[in-house]
Amino acid sequence: MNERFEILESTLVSLLKSKKYSTLRDILVTMNPNDIAQIMGGLEEERIPLLFRLLPKELAAETFVEMDTDAQEMLIQGFSDTELKEIVDELYVDDAADLVEEMPANVVKRILKQATPEMRNSINQILRYPENSAGSIMTTEYVALRPDMTVGESLKQIRRKGVDKETIYTCYVTDNRTLIGVVSVKDLLLAPTDDVVISDIMLRNIISVTTQTDQEEVARMLSKYGFLAMPVVDSDNRMVGIVTFDDAMTVLQEEVTEDIEIMAGMTPSEDSYLKTTPWEMFKNRFPWLLLLMVSATFTGMIITSFESALAQVVVLTAFIPMLMGTGGNSGSQSSVTVIRALSLGELKFSDMGIVVWKELRTSLLCGIVLGVACFGKVYLVDNLLMGNPDVTMWIALVVSLALVVTVILAKLVGCVLPLVAKKLGFDPAVMASPFITTIVDALSLLIYFMFATMILHL
Amino acid sequence: MNERFEILESTLVSLLKSKKYSTLRDILVTMNPNDIAQIMGGLEEERIPLLFRLLPKELAAETFVEMDTDAQEMLIQGFSDTELKEIVDELYVDDAADLVEEMPANVVKRILKQATPEMRNSINQILRYPENSAGSIMTTEYVALRPDMTVGESLKQIRRKGVDKETIYTCYVTDNRTLIGVVSVKDLLLAPTDDVVISDIMLRNIISVTTQTDQEEVARMLSKYGFLAMPVVDSDNRMVGIVTFDDAMTVLQEEVTEDIEIMAGMTPSEDSYLKTTPWEMFKNRFPWLLLLMVSATFTGMIITSFESALAQVVVLTAFIPMLMGTGGNSGSQSSVTVIRALSLGELKFSDMGIVVWKELRTSLLCGIVLGVACFGKVYLVDNLLMGNPDVTMWIALVVSLALVVTVILAKLVGCVLPLVAKKLGFDPAVMASPFITTIVDALSLLIYFMFATMILHL
Repeated sequence: MNERFEILESTLVSLLKSKKYSTLRDILVTMNPNDIAQIMGGLEEERIPLLFRLLPKELAAETFVEMDTDAQEMLIQGFSDTELKEIVDELYVDDAADLVEEMPANVVKRILKQATPEMRNSINQILRYPENSAGSIMTTEYVALRPDMTVGESLKQIRRKGVDKETIYTCYVTDNRTLIGVVSVKDLLLAPTDDVVISDIMLRNIISVTTQTDQEEVARMLSKYGFLAMPVVDSDNRMVGIVTFDDAMTVLQEEVTEDIEIMAGMTPSEDSYLKTTPWEMFKNRFPWLLLLMVSATFTGMIITSFESALAQVVVLTAFIPMLMGTGGNSGSQSSVTVIRALSLGELKFSDMGIVVWKELRTSLLCGIVLGVACFGKVYLVDNLLMGNPDVTMWIALVVSLALVVTVILAKLVGCVLPLVAKKLGFDPAVMASPFITTIVDALSLLIYFMFATMILHL
Repeated sequence: MNERFEILESTLVSLLKSKKYSTLRDILVTMNPNDIAQIMGGLEEERIPLLFRLLPKELAAETFVEMDTDAQEMLIQGFSDTELKEIVDELYVDDAADLVEEMPANVVKRILKQATPEMRNSINQILRYPENSAGSIMTTEYVALRPDMTVGESLKQIRRKGVDKETIYTCYVTDNRTLIGVVSVKDLLLAPTDDVVISDIMLRNIISVTTQTDQEEVARMLSKYGFLAMPVVDSDNRMVGIVTFDDAMTVLQEEVTEDIEIMAGMTPSEDSYLKTTPWEMFKNRFPWLLLLMVSATFTGMIITSFESALAQVVVLTAFIPMLMGTGGNSGSQSSVTVIRALSLGELKFSDMGIVVWKELRTSLLCGIVLGVACFGKVYLVDNLLMGNPDVTMWIALVVSLALVVTVILAKLVGCVLPLVAKKLGFDPAVMASPFITTIVDALSLLIYFMFATMILHL
């Protein structure tokens, strides 16, 4: 596939350079708008409007939607009012609303001036919903049928009005704007005769979301049920729009990227990697590094307060990184597993007991086996094999015992914190490795020095 | 939504307990198979077959597909041959193939005995493809049209044969089994007359995958293009099946969970969190912890070799956790960002230069600002405010310089390793935080002791 794309790309670029515009147009009309947008993304800026003007109206609008914000803005700035109107007329309402959200004020004014009053209303309606809600990503263009229509009449209506709808395959049956049923084009086509009445074949057990539902929840439900579109209703169960599966897939991908970035201790980035400037990356990463660096002061203070003990048995220092590292890894294993299960909707706060019991048994297994391995490694390898007389059996015991307790505590902290964060309304992803590691670092040192003081009588 | 589901669940359970089977059946037939499967998952085992037998044939099959493997096996073990045949007949080929892959041998034998010879062939064909390939997740049930058919004939064919197809909305135009075009039901319905010939309206620029394409790549392409289904062709461009968007969404979710688990240093789990036993969790987590613990020996060895220096200036020890922690966090920020960009297809190996240049500038910004903050914090707070005379300006200088260099190196290692892993054919996710942290821990110590030796003349 990538090969095919690269051949297409180089052909188009060379046709563009040799100004073979009519051949170029012939190829462009057969192409997928996504691919065209991607190729435009790789062109020098001054070439984009030229290529764009070669596209027929509908394909131009579809391509426009797939382009990145900078290129869109550049194109609009160069458009005449007539050109802009042609594009805006072809846009689906949800795409137009996205555009209005992302463009600077002067561009927005031009876009809204070119939109029909009807579209302007729909855009404004969508923009009123909170960010990341079903209302803000829905489209108001769906096929609505009445319950008393026949299959034949319904198909006729779809044929008449379907061209402007984002999906025609799922139709919504409304009575006085209240959503009362769902019927698919498959049901319509496979109905025994054209005279069957919609209310006899429609599905009445409707799964829907409200305009306020979080977009991630909508996407997860679409994925769970395998729907083509999810109906969006207002608080009175009146149909206001649909969220289509392709938008849901995009939402899922974006939310996952966001989760992963937060889990690695970063503010989520707005753009793709190659579009993000070093300065933006600095702004996303620096505050977290600073916060974590400052909170590492605690570990420093713990070490300082045991300085005299360390000065007596300097070899203890050598095991600090291993202890803290293993503790941190154990903790982040648990926290990341629980965070993912939370974001897949597999866990809720009330499962806390089950989670803690499961992690406790897992951590006992991990802790004890690791402790034994550690004792063997420290005593046998460091003392006997490498002949370091400072590493006595007692030192090995201190290190191993500290390791066992650290692993167990790390796993418990790791599984509890994301659940608590969720309950308190924070994003559980914040509780992933950097955060857990900082807590576990301090914990592991305290445990280590406690065992050292007890066993070595420091 | 969850509330609605919980009300449904408690109603069904109480009806089941009071043996009101006909009311129960009336409610079940209006429900979504996903919801029924989820409710069954929460029932005591002996109740599942009872509830299942209340479902009408088609709904029973749809529900069966959504159940987890254990419940499926239990049901099949209890089925008579006739019951099994009824379910198998209703299954789509891809779901049947999934079932055959997951069931133990004796159950598989019974399933294959009940399948029609045609379905048996299709199942066997799907099973021959490598795991996680497009071939292994495709279904062979799609609508095929001939280029010389009219729109009217096509619609008639869909009405006649569509009931058994997983999607009817995208139809594939084949000539002697070679895929030559795609046409949607929307195109058919919106065609000006029923006499239009398919070859005149079909899309000829086909985007397809081969049976060998990785399922993640297929899912990503489906998501990129917003298709309902992706055609799968063999090496001679002959149409063999389709992958539908709902399967693709599931693949995307699973692959993300896998990536996240690997990034946190775990072997990906086969089951959901609540289904995974502590013993399985131990097996997934322990080997990584052991590996990382053993590799932390290097950090111990580095510290041991600088033991005499540390004994002279014990206060140096206090800053080790902060240095290693900040280095680890910086490195995992970069590695996780690059890993995610790789798995979204935003980056390839040849972008190495761009990535390194971007991370270098980011790391200079992060490193220098953090270094200044660190110097201020160590010198002003630890020395002047907390009155620790051991923390001289020279110590603050050593710590800050080590921090700057560590952050820069950590970010560079963090961005390069995933790209190299990808190039060498490993999963880049392996190069995430635990792995990077281990490398960076050792690096940061070496840098720290180097500056200490130079500046403090140890």
